[in-house]
Amino acid sequence: MAPSYALLIDIAPADADRADFADTFTVIDPAQPALPVGELSAQRGDGVFESIGLIDGHAQEVTAHLERLAHSAELCDLPAPHLSQWRQAVAQVAAHAGAGEAVIKLVLSRGVEGGQSPTGWVTVAPATDFAASRADGIRVVTLDRGCPLDAPARAPWLLSGAKTLSYAVNMAALREAKRRGADDAIFTTSDGFVLEAPTASLILRRGDTFVTPAPTGGILHGTTQVSLFARLAAQGFAVAYEEVPASTLASADAAWLVSSVRLAAPIIDIDGLSLPLERELTASLNAYLLSGRD
Amino acid sequence: MAPSYALLIDIAPADADRADFADTFTVIDPAQPALPVGELSAQRGDGVFESIGLIDGHAQEVTAHLERLAHSAELCDLPAPHLSQWRQAVAQVAAHAGAGEAVIKLVLSRGVEGGQSPTGWVTVAPATDFAASRADGIRVVTLDRGCPLDAPARAPWLLSGAKTLSYAVNMAALREAKRRGADDAIFTTSDGFVLEAPTASLILRRGDTFVTPAPTGGILHGTTQVSLFARLAAQGFAVAYEEVPASTLASADAAWLVSSVRLAAPIIDIDGLSLPLERELTASLNAYLLSGRD
Repeated sequence: MAPSYALLIDIAPADADRADFADTFTVIDPAQPALPVGELSAQRGDGVFESIGLIDGHAQEVTAHLERLAHSAELCDLPAPHLSQWRQAVAQVAAHAGAGEAVIKLVLSRGVEGGQSPTGWVTVAPATDFAASRADGIRVVTLDRGCPLDAPARAPWLLSGAKTLSYAVNMAALREAKRRGADDAIFTTSDGFVLEAPTASLILRRGDTFVTPAPTGGILHGTTQVSLFARLAAQGFAVAYEEVPASTLASADAAWLVSSVRLAAPIIDIDGLSLPLERELTASLNAYLLSGRD
Repeated sequence: MAPSYALLIDIAPADADRADFADTFTVIDPAQPALPVGELSAQRGDGVFESIGLIDGHAQEVTAHLERLAHSAELCDLPAPHLSQWRQAVAQVAAHAGAGEAVIKLVLSRGVEGGQSPTGWVTVAPATDFAASRADGIRVVTLDRGCPLDAPARAPWLLSGAKTLSYAVNMAALREAKRRGADDAIFTTSDGFVLEAPTASLILRRGDTFVTPAPTGGILHGTTQVSLFARLAAQGFAVAYEEVPASTLASADAAWLVSSVRLAAPIIDIDGLSLPLERELTASLNAYLLSGRD
């Protein structure tokens, strides 16, 4: 949905020695023009971003998201973000969200073509109501991401593992999934391994072990997946990062796509093969994800 | 360089039945904010674009660029652009460029998140001076694009062949090339075939035959390459689209990266292996590319 509150950030150098960055924020009307057409985010998808879940005004796992923003910036040769500045920006927009679920977006762009400094902005928008997806599950299709599992290690310039603004393929994959009557997609490698969804991570249950594809495959390391694994491990379950053959997907005891805003969506169908819907376990996962997390 | 003149387009439906679209253009100050932060071009690189060379006020090969814009839009499930509207926008910005070389950019974005219609804008900016690259040549390195040659045919959602705004990887490849002391890069497939440069097409000369990688490999069909092939064929040279093994690059009699603004840049070094610089032939190619073309 459209943002309800937004601010532009006058990007501070990573080593700026100050405690308060309020004077570097400019509150803007999110419906009004804020970016020149020379913005490299708009011209080339040249920047990085994060989406943070907000529950009744509490921003979830802010540190994990800020650290991933910094990691994405490093992979893209962008100046290191000053995390205290971004943390304060997140707090300011969170204070304007009100009750219920919302999503905070952080964007760090390379800036205006010919300019000297990056552009940053943070927005907050009401979250889509995902109650049905969380309770009744989603249908997914697997889509070939085109490359073999070892491509990211060979070719770091592919920016695998960076959450860049260049999401045209992710959006095309979601449209293809809907064309096939599904709700979402799971990317696979050309050599038959499972990667991730266009905007979510995959978690499988095999007995008492929860498995997710190893981020060494160049996928984004999901903040929600990491949070859930910590919770599951604390509850005594085994958790594992593995190379997951796509051929084994349908034989999982259960599977979820997890992300910061939709949270845990149980997968009830993969490429036409049904998977068990575990309502109680899923409800407990989402109850945890909806609780205040730092 | 930064745009000197820009206009926003109130997108007309492809079947709009009118001769004059002047009232759908809003001239803007390219240095001032024009796009809201909810723009999907800026949030997700979700849109398509074209770059058109402008020589002393004459926009080159406009029809070919407009047709490719429409092709890219179709691959991205964007509404078909009304080509007469875009043609008139190109003419209006071209009239404000003055003498010398310039570049016109056309952008068609999916629009503002939650909005109903795409966003379009056209800018003109002075061109970088590429005289040295055209005369003395460029050094290139090959970079693995990660996927095998047959990936685009298997996975159309990869949007290969669409000139999308999601150019983060193209920009990362250019930075990697510079890190290696080169001027530009040539993408190769994981199975060893040549694709294209991040912002240009490759042409090789073998004897009297000029060869370019077949666009069936999912590369962008270069307007400058097509224009040059027509010229060369008219001059009696053989031209061919082939699957080009990367291992054969250095054995070419000559090679060029060709694009709409830098035009024909002779390659003098590929991965440290030198290639002959054909000054006369290159000068004749650029003389043609600098002449008025429609």
